Amino acid sequence: MVLEKLKWRYATKKMDPSKQVAPDKVERILESIRLAPTSSGLQPYEVIVVTNPEVREKIKPIAWNQSQITDGSHLLVFAAWDNYTADRINSMFDLVNAERGSTSEGWENYRKMLLGTYVPRDPQVNFEHAARQAYIGLGIALTAAAFEGVDSTPMEGFEPAKLDEILGLRERGLRSVAIMPLGYREADKDWLVNLKKVRRARENFITEVA
Amino acid sequence: MVLEKLKWRYATKKMDPSKQVAPDKVERILESIRLAPTSSGLQPYEVIVVTNPEVREKIKPIAWNQSQITDGSHLLVFAAWDNYTADRINSMFDLVNAERGSTSEGWENYRKMLLGTYVPRDPQVNFEHAARQAYIGLGIALTAAAFEGVDSTPMEGFEPAKLDEILGLRERGLRSVAIMPLGYREADKDWLVNLKKVRRARENFITEVA
Repeated sequence: MVLEKLKWRYATKKMDPSKQVAPDKVERILESIRLAPTSSGLQPYEVIVVTNPEVREKIKPIAWNQSQITDGSHLLVFAAWDNYTADRINSMFDLVNAERGSTSEGWENYRKMLLGTYVPRDPQVNFEHAARQAYIGLGIALTAAAFEGVDSTPMEGFEPAKLDEILGLRERGLRSVAIMPLGYREADKDWLVNLKKVRRARENFITEVA
Repeated sequence: MVLEKLKWRYATKKMDPSKQVAPDKVERILESIRLAPTSSGLQPYEVIVVTNPEVREKIKPIAWNQSQITDGSHLLVFAAWDNYTADRINSMFDLVNAERGSTSEGWENYRKMLLGTYVPRDPQVNFEHAARQAYIGLGIALTAAAFEGVDSTPMEGFEPAKLDEILGLRERGLRSVAIMPLGYREADKDWLVNLKKVRRARENFITEVA
């Protein structure tokens, strides 16, 4: 089931500007990202959904003019926390306690351990750690999109600092790491759609220690 | 469908050592990782599947003695390339040309651009970039496991340098970034199984620019 969807999807190069992804589909894709696991459950990133045409027109030139940014109907921006702070860690632990209506000594010790480890650490190391978590969400989002029959294109080809500026991310303590337009393939104008999906052979990708 | 599976899964804390994940299920999970997209299609990581009990016993103490490592039946190790090299980039582009039986000027220019950008770059920057790609695979793998009804626990709580040594990864130009045991939950011994899954509310995680 998952394999079939992963074979169907591809990094769509041309999206049909006349087609909109329905709101319920977008909502389920976003919910899949929200449910994605992250290290210690901190969810150290946010997702910005850009539909505004003018904003997407501004983003396109800082992303190699990739047409999917404006031809798709929604642009998801994955933006990682620029750092782990005591506030950010504490609010997640507090939320867990509130939602579960209880806490435990082990859990509170775990909070202390994270505070002691992450907060004093180099912000760049923390950002890189947060960025990895966003990529778990990215992987799940593109799978969820495929299950919805929605095309998507995971992209790193953009200038993060400029995107951060356009969306005002730095002042929110966020740094963009990946973007993903959602839309529908315009197959007759897409050079990639009929080319074979190429992956390394299993024996060059997977090793067994049995 | 995906949402239901994401709600079912959780970071399993206790696995039943008497249960084995069937080979065909493991194979489909591995295939989902192989099919996962990566930046420029480079697939800059490998997956090591450890079933050997002695090797897993050696790994456990360098991973906070987490019991899933030996109670599960399979341990997946995600190991990112330690660097991008001309050889690695060229072999992926050559594979694509061979599999598609053709190439194009645009594609060859893209190869040159990557060679010019990635190869001279700080190896640590390249490793971090490769690690992010592995996390796309991690996200897809845990989704695929849930579709198979297989429990899994994505883990960063281990000492990468020591794991690399146990598995001889550095000499293969690889660095472990995440591990994931596969198995079946032993629900009556798992403290987490009945606790509520907590995620930030949608309004604290998703922003719309409409």
